[in-house]
Amino acid sequence: MKFKLHPQLKQDCIAIGRFELCHLLMINDSQFPWFVLVPEINGITEIFQLNKPQQSLLIEESSTLADTLNTLYNADKINIAAIGNLVPQLHIHHVVRYRTDKVWPAPIWGKLPAIAYLEQELSDTLGSITHALQLKSMSFSTS
Amino acid sequence: MKFKLHPQLKQDCIAIGRFELCHLLMINDSQFPWFVLVPEINGITEIFQLNKPQQSLLIEESSTLADTLNTLYNADKINIAAIGNLVPQLHIHHVVRYRTDKVWPAPIWGKLPAIAYLEQELSDTLGSITHALQLKSMSFSTS
Repeated sequence: MKFKLHPQLKQDCIAIGRFELCHLLMINDSQFPWFVLVPEINGITEIFQLNKPQQSLLIEESSTLADTLNTLYNADKINIAAIGNLVPQLHIHHVVRYRTDKVWPAPIWGKLPAIAYLEQELSDTLGSITHALQLKSMSFSTS
Repeated sequence: MKFKLHPQLKQDCIAIGRFELCHLLMINDSQFPWFVLVPEINGITEIFQLNKPQQSLLIEESSTLADTLNTLYNADKINIAAIGNLVPQLHIHHVVRYRTDKVWPAPIWGKLPAIAYLEQELSDTLGSITHALQLKSMSFSTS
């Protein structure tokens, strides 16, 4: 069965590229550098439903992403979470946090309505993250 | 250097046992079955700072815990998160969620003041989780 991204993720996110296991998306909210990994496997809602090699790949891809974001954005903290109370398809949030951001130290989920990126800002952001990931990871490719 | 648990985790949690990499703690809040894994490595604040074998162990132990909680509590969802905006020592939350719980579908962090377990309730809870993990995982032991 062909992989189908959940319609809510399709609506909220911009597709950036993919790793071996996961699609990389970015939430279209200019208030936070906020990225989402979605393993390309239908019908999965929990990490423990992945088999062991998939779990290892997931944490490897998550760590490549988090490490890259940490450097690229000079983050104070990376918040990583698999929540999925509203969107059941397994997706793992990676959010760059600063002590000076709008909701620090609270987690960001459900706090502020999204503010979409402006066109130039979006293209700069996608360009820099794509470039940084391609330098960092052999397995990352743009979609 | 001997491993030291962050004082805030010491204060909020009850030590349950350990896996090969992580200590397992439970947050003393009877409103949510809420468990925390802490890798026994000093000075780590992000998952990507662990080496690859440690990352694989972490996701394996996390999945054993989440799978066990899912069955034991008949959960609607397991929420897993590494946030650490307030407590820098790397710790990964595992929270059993129900569609009927007090803050569903919002994430629980920062939502409600904790209500400590009553003595009998605490001993029953610790007994059942310890038993379930020992059945599930060769590497789990009580502290």
